[in-house]
Amino acid sequence: MTLASTQVRTAPSSDHVTIAYIGGGSRQWAPNLIQDLAQSELDGEVRLYDAHPESAERNARFGNWVQEQDGAVAEWSYEATDTLETTLTGADVVIISTQYDPAETFVHDLDVPKEYGIYGAVAATIGPGGILRAMRTIPQYREFAAAIAEHCPDAWVFNYTNPVHFVTRALYDEYPGINAIGLCHEVLGTRHRLARYAREELDMDAERSDVSVNVKGINHFTWVDEARCQGVDLWPVLEELRDSEHGHRRFTPEEIEGESVFVDNWQVTWELFRRFGVLPAAGDRHLIEYATWFMQGGREELNRWGVKRTGSDYRAKHWTPAESDQTTDVEAWLEGEKEFELTESNETFVDILRALVGEGTYTTNVNLPNVGQVDGLQEDAVVETNALIRAGEVKPIAAGGFPRPVESLIRGHVDTIETVIEASRTGDVDAAFEGFLIDQQVRTLGTEDAREMFAELIVAEEGYLEGWDLEGSAVLEESEAFA
Amino acid sequence: MTLASTQVRTAPSSDHVTIAYIGGGSRQWAPNLIQDLAQSELDGEVRLYDAHPESAERNARFGNWVQEQDGAVAEWSYEATDTLETTLTGADVVIISTQYDPAETFVHDLDVPKEYGIYGAVAATIGPGGILRAMRTIPQYREFAAAIAEHCPDAWVFNYTNPVHFVTRALYDEYPGINAIGLCHEVLGTRHRLARYAREELDMDAERSDVSVNVKGINHFTWVDEARCQGVDLWPVLEELRDSEHGHRRFTPEEIEGESVFVDNWQVTWELFRRFGVLPAAGDRHLIEYATWFMQGGREELNRWGVKRTGSDYRAKHWTPAESDQTTDVEAWLEGEKEFELTESNETFVDILRALVGEGTYTTNVNLPNVGQVDGLQEDAVVETNALIRAGEVKPIAAGGFPRPVESLIRGHVDTIETVIEASRTGDVDAAFEGFLIDQQVRTLGTEDAREMFAELIVAEEGYLEGWDLEGSAVLEESEAFA
Amino acid sequence: MTLASTQVRTAPSSDHVTIAYIGGGSRQWAPNLIQDLAQSELDGEVRLYDAHPESAERNARFGNWVQEQDGAVAEWSYEATDTLETTLTGADVVIISTQYDPAETFVHDLDVPKEYGIYGAVAATIGPGGILRAMRTIPQYREFAAAIAEHCPDAWVFNYTNPVHFVTRALYDEYPGINAIGLCHEVLGTRHRLARYAREELDMDAERSDVSVNVKGINHFTWVDEARCQGVDLWPVLEELRDSEHGHRRFTPEEIEGESVFVDNWQVTWELFRRFGVLPAAGDRHLIEYATWFMQGGREELNRWGVKRTGSDYRAKHWTPAESDQTTDVEAWLEGEKEFELTESNETFVDILRALVGEGTYTTNVNLPNVGQVDGLQEDAVVETNALIRAGEVKPIAAGGFPRPVESLIRGHVDTIETVIEASRTGDVDAAFEGFLIDQQVRTLGTEDAREMFAELIVAEEGYLEGWDLEGSAVLEESEAFA
Amino acid sequence: MTLASTQVRTAPSSDHVTIAYIGGGSRQWAPNLIQDLAQSELDGEVRLYDAHPESAERNARFGNWVQEQDGAVAEWSYEATDTLETTLTGADVVIISTQYDPAETFVHDLDVPKEYGIYGAVAATIGPGGILRAMRTIPQYREFAAAIAEHCPDAWVFNYTNPVHFVTRALYDEYPGINAIGLCHEVLGTRHRLARYAREELDMDAERSDVSVNVKGINHFTWVDEARCQGVDLWPVLEELRDSEHGHRRFTPEEIEGESVFVDNWQVTWELFRRFGVLPAAGDRHLIEYATWFMQGGREELNRWGVKRTGSDYRAKHWTPAESDQTTDVEAWLEGEKEFELTESNETFVDILRALVGEGTYTTNVNLPNVGQVDGLQEDAVVETNALIRAGEVKPIAAGGFPRPVESLIRGHVDTIETVIEASRTGDVDAAFEGFLIDQQVRTLGTEDAREMFAELIVAEEGYLEGWDLEGSAVLEESEAFA
Repeated sequence: MTLASTQVRTAPSSDHVTIAYIGGGSRQWAPNLIQDLAQSELDGEVRLYDAHPESAERNARFGNWVQEQDGAVAEWSYEATDTLETTLTGADVVIISTQYDPAETFVHDLDVPKEYGIYGAVAATIGPGGILRAMRTIPQYREFAAAIAEHCPDAWVFNYTNPVHFVTRALYDEYPGINAIGLCHEVLGTRHRLARYAREELDMDAERSDVSVNVKGINHFTWVDEARCQGVDLWPVLEELRDSEHGHRRFTPEEIEGESVFVDNWQVTWELFRRFGVLPAAGDRHLIEYATWFMQGGREELNRWGVKRTGSDYRAKHWTPAESDQTTDVEAWLEGEKEFELTESNETFVDILRALVGEGTYTTNVNLPNVGQVDGLQEDAVVETNALIRAGEVKPIAAGGFPRPVESLIRGHVDTIETVIEASRTGDVDAAFEGFLIDQQVRTLGTEDAREMFAELIVAEEGYLEGWDLEGSAVLEESEAFA
Repeated sequence: MTLASTQVRTAPSSDHVTIAYIGGGSRQWAPNLIQDLAQSELDGEVRLYDAHPESAERNARFGNWVQEQDGAVAEWSYEATDTLETTLTGADVVIISTQYDPAETFVHDLDVPKEYGIYGAVAATIGPGGILRAMRTIPQYREFAAAIAEHCPDAWVFNYTNPVHFVTRALYDEYPGINAIGLCHEVLGTRHRLARYAREELDMDAERSDVSVNVKGINHFTWVDEARCQGVDLWPVLEELRDSEHGHRRFTPEEIEGESVFVDNWQVTWELFRRFGVLPAAGDRHLIEYATWFMQGGREELNRWGVKRTGSDYRAKHWTPAESDQTTDVEAWLEGEKEFELTESNETFVDILRALVGEGTYTTNVNLPNVGQVDGLQEDAVVETNALIRAGEVKPIAAGGFPRPVESLIRGHVDTIETVIEASRTGDVDAAFEGFLIDQQVRTLGTEDAREMFAELIVAEEGYLEGWDLEGSAVLEESEAFA
Repeated sequence: MTLASTQVRTAPSSDHVTIAYIGGGSRQWAPNLIQDLAQSELDGEVRLYDAHPESAERNARFGNWVQEQDGAVAEWSYEATDTLETTLTGADVVIISTQYDPAETFVHDLDVPKEYGIYGAVAATIGPGGILRAMRTIPQYREFAAAIAEHCPDAWVFNYTNPVHFVTRALYDEYPGINAIGLCHEVLGTRHRLARYAREELDMDAERSDVSVNVKGINHFTWVDEARCQGVDLWPVLEELRDSEHGHRRFTPEEIEGESVFVDNWQVTWELFRRFGVLPAAGDRHLIEYATWFMQGGREELNRWGVKRTGSDYRAKHWTPAESDQTTDVEAWLEGEKEFELTESNETFVDILRALVGEGTYTTNVNLPNVGQVDGLQEDAVVETNALIRAGEVKPIAAGGFPRPVESLIRGHVDTIETVIEASRTGDVDAAFEGFLIDQQVRTLGTEDAREMFAELIVAEEGYLEGWDLEGSAVLEESEAFA
Repeated sequence: MTLASTQVRTAPSSDHVTIAYIGGGSRQWAPNLIQDLAQSELDGEVRLYDAHPESAERNARFGNWVQEQDGAVAEWSYEATDTLETTLTGADVVIISTQYDPAETFVHDLDVPKEYGIYGAVAATIGPGGILRAMRTIPQYREFAAAIAEHCPDAWVFNYTNPVHFVTRALYDEYPGINAIGLCHEVLGTRHRLARYAREELDMDAERSDVSVNVKGINHFTWVDEARCQGVDLWPVLEELRDSEHGHRRFTPEEIEGESVFVDNWQVTWELFRRFGVLPAAGDRHLIEYATWFMQGGREELNRWGVKRTGSDYRAKHWTPAESDQTTDVEAWLEGEKEFELTESNETFVDILRALVGEGTYTTNVNLPNVGQVDGLQEDAVVETNALIRAGEVKPIAAGGFPRPVESLIRGHVDTIETVIEASRTGDVDAAFEGFLIDQQVRTLGTEDAREMFAELIVAEEGYLEGWDLEGSAVLEESEAFA
């Protein structure tokens, strides 16, 4: 470990925080942010940058409009920007949350593997679809990292884009001095559920913020080995639930059918807890893509564990900005068609920002390169643990290691991630295929099927794979799909 | 690393080597050994110990008879022994090569997983069958190790029993001061084949002993990254063969049908070499159980790569001593029904022994706990590399590391092995199941199928699982098969 | 790293905290604690245990008396106890802060090495005197750890006794499940001084709690590579001071003579900062015993750097309870001879305790076994970093590593510490001497001088070295002093 | 560890080996080599390159003359070359053994530290003089490595130049694909002495080649933990000698006075063996510069251990080619003034070369980057262990680790070496001083003395420190000597 003295930086000032928001045309997250900022004790400006400039414009309009509404106590101004340079120059904070690829790519991420019997539930962050998504995303994020190095090298960078581990790792790989953290909701969800158990089982008056966990792993495959609510050890409660009927529910496809794709019945969680003695802290639909044996029985097996597969039609619909119902109703508010009331989201961004500028301290889970906070995983791999956030600093908390079988599973995924990251330095598709081939989901296929699936995915998403040398690939040349 | 000063031992004397042979009733290996010894420059005695005393008696008779035949230049005497104590006391060398379990257990090792779609070719050393075999074998070998510690703590121990990595690891785990090496033919086979390529492609006059390789890995999943024949680099030859038609052959089930189960067409080898840039050095039928994606297409896919599955009927037949045709014809010779001629085997045992007693040096591949000879794998795991053998010492040769995807695969298997070894200390079946569940073959099953397969195997082989606490297992209790 | 699931414990309740105080007869620290508790928002009881029961009685009297004074808002009761069992049973918190050895031992710690030209300034925690002190202390602390394991296995243990690294390590070595932290003021002093620089150089309104540092190392040899005051990076200020006259002061013996032995002129600090680029965070008089080249010129060289040697006469005087003027005036207060006014100390104990019972969070430097918080030092060595303290948990913050020369120095000291700890398991004096001989101060002596110095120290302190097998030592047998 | 596939090379042919000899004007080693080659079974040519061309010419003449003498069975031709390019192009083997610096530099290496109380015996490879020697040598060897990379990238490079660890490390640091080994006589000397003990104590008929040792460490600070003679364990003999009078001899200055500077009484060896349980395998005069406590009592203490200090006058005389009596009498032979008889040296070069071209195998100690052969030291550091040499390959033998105190000592020296090597990449004098300051000998000085000594050495040897940025150094600027 060498010293990264460039990372000793003065905290942003709470009087005027300059936020650059790449992907600022978002229909859901941006309006939430705007409302949270308006109710905060911080002031500043937000620059919204998006591949769809009109979305950024709309959000800028909304942001400035919110400032005039009841309950808006902070002073913020918004503008849409049209180059990375103008967006980033002088920024204290950069938010990156993009989804440039059209929905069809996500459809391929799910549907092509399905043809080969791989029933990923979301294909978001690992497995064949997750790796392809990483391959599409990494080159873009290398560009963002390079632009940050040039225009605002000391800025705090918040990455919300999936696959969070691949993407955050790519940011550091491109610009090692970057001050980036990857953020994700899954562990927050676990704490939320643990608060519920504290209320139900211990009759405590508890909410998410009362629950503290010792958390570690990689994003979407994190594990908890200590949990407390207001200092009360929750382990006995969890063990009891795990061993009770509550931890042994089975579901039929019919029971699952009407549920939202986000339904989380925790049966995968309980099963893994039973098996390994530590509690996984991510949604079941994500866990199965890392503990791949849950995927082997197809849809029925998934359903039996209470997991619903994100149909590719759902994805196609919801990730198309225009039709998504995951959005908030900005236009209706602006037009006065719908009554507006300032609300606070559950997001932690403003909490983190407040601590970073020096207003108190805050502890939450973040994704950062491993400098020792997770034992047993290699240095520099992007891992997820709690971090202490104070004025001008985010410090990961040393969380220890894992039971060997869990460590083995995680290291296997880290090997895939690191292999693809290395391959992405030169755009070497065959080197990326080495990582693809050792992925736990892909390994269920024969060699030729794996190659064909890879080639099919590449062919289907060819237009979004800039930065990869498709022509020079021996693997693709051997495949039928590409030839 | 602490010093193992107890391992500084005087070499056995070549004038009288006392060999204890556990499993000495073998019909194939023992007669070979007897003939090799008779033609060596060493003298001594051999004690034959076997679960079938009559087999040991027969081989003792044969051994003493061979001494009187033409060409027998060395002086050796043979006797059958009936306790470990009398066998081991004062021994310089211990050979362990047993197959106590009845053939039916091996049938289960293959057939039960097959019901679950797992088409291992031999189920000998990894995968569900290999793990069960390890579970049956480890407790016995702990007993052998304890007896060696008591009766001949300084003896050199040669383990030939599979799964070599599990078993050799168990010997060291039970008695850390043991001087044991695990031996296997696979790498010798690779050198044999490389000599053939040197003859065919380079027109060299070459045999196995002319070929040297830099070899590393775990038994049956070793890798070569340097190969020479009489000092000539063979890599260009190998790369050319790999990329030629020779490295791209496909087989139909019909083509394979008539072949021996030992047929090795090297197509798995070439494919792995293509993929990872290093050459695997074990038979294809073993490799596929470690690089499990080759197993995913069932028998047809195996056949397509030129691999023939060892039918369980074959196993049942050949592992029953009486009917096996893998034997030599000891009775016929003794009875004079068949003419006897002293022949030399291809075994390396006498070569190693000669070096150990100080007659020159010898280099060959051995399985030993990792003290640094393999980079990237944990210390103490039993790994396979070359070793230099000299008077009183066997020293592993530092062989370096692996490309990351290969290291990832090997580490995954090491995690399984180490988890089972740890579990075997207390006979904890549930801890062993954790290792079973992360096995690369098992991971292709859903959770419940994995549990049922495990329970079915346990139930089928219950009589041979002494040393395991079957009653105390929560996993078995949950299963249908066991309940 | 295995899971230490026993360490998942419910936080103590703030309504009634039971504190066991071993060494509770202290004249300085105990009265401070009593006053801090009286002004806190916590309630409970304190059991005072001491080798000098009358001192414990006096403090108990004082404690209960304070409860009736103005400003005492919390409810605490005090009693003197006379066995470890009654002291510890049911305790939530254990404070250990003892100085059982009579002053003469400390005189030897300083004077014997001085005869050999080793001019330690305090001989408190490393070097020949520090190692002997460790040898006297470790066996006692093993007893405390065993008693805690028996009587209050889940208690939070605060160790204040030097050598903090040796002693805290011994607690964990004896009872791996202990919940102990080692505490020390040195890093607090550094933060205090940095606050002064922030006031003086940056005109900020700052105090210790405004300064945050990224700190890591071993106790008394910790290093800072990031420092901020209210988020403002202090590094430029520190670099400027370092390179200015302020960082280049020289002192004559005359200038130093009148100073307190605690004087700290930071010239060793600046010199080390210049040399290695990171800022040491302990008093100069401690640093020189780890960066031993500062000690080589004897008293004059020490003085030149502004360091005053703790004369052994000072030690003899101040560590004898009766005469020390490091005490507070408990009797005078109790007798009404002196006016009493409740004051708050600068101690962090109550701050930590408050966080532990769930009243907010707190961050401060602590000594804990390394689970990854310090990169480049071995696991389990007791290291010092910041920790986040919350209800029922103390979690070290991952602080990264060091420039290689600094890591090299620290590892050398860790090797000494670990060697002595290992030796203490069986009381093996010769094994301890191996650690003594590689100590950086001792290494300046010839072999025989080192042996004689060791033997002389052993002989002088023989009465306090219970637990060590002096008779069985070959090293002592060879020496003149012992024979 | 990545694969170094470029290191897979075909062995040189024994029919015609092309040897490039940098430093080929040597008066001692070159004539030995010429005679050894003449009596070998190898043929080829030798190119002699030297900073003193006339010395190379003389040796070439001698080489060709020897070919015509009785007993010269092999065919070798010799020529003096005058550029690195002509010397190296097409070479199979490169010998590097130079001493370009004039004798005065070595005088400074010894005398300047002596002024500061540092009584190194030879100052050859570590300590202030050794580090300066490294600083003079490394830049030259970087040039050699670069030339080898350009003109004969696959050649086998034998480095005999001290400090062997620094220099061999620099070769690999400059050209990572180099096939270099560092060679040294010290371990051979230990085996020679062990053969003597086998003769004297065990009445065996033994010579050096009968003794095998398990050896590991860094050059001049290697350790043996197993030793056998013809397979017979020598440990009991060594322990008995160690504990007897033989291992406890003391010497007066008078007794030492008449001895050669190379006298080796093994008393340092026995003392270290007593202390740490493992046997050091280098001359006592080297060992004391690594186990620096032996140097602390000045000349008298050295003498007491039977070590004689190499007076700088000796060095001045013997390292000036013209006057040295360490030479052989080439001119006298050529002129017929002295009778010539072909003799064999004790050098191992021809033995190694014979194995490398495929004539059998050979095992001896070599210095190579650590790939796991030494446990507990960092990868890539140049370590010394045995290696197995075969056609086209040199493979280090995995030798395990050390008792902790020994590991600690070695790692400390490795830290110095690595720090200086890193500094040499950019010629950063201040970074080199960080390594100098943590050297075990230097650490006995106060800060300012250390700085002055460093500056004095730099000033004295300024003319030979090309490649270092003396002007940009803050350390030198602060010093009095340089200013």
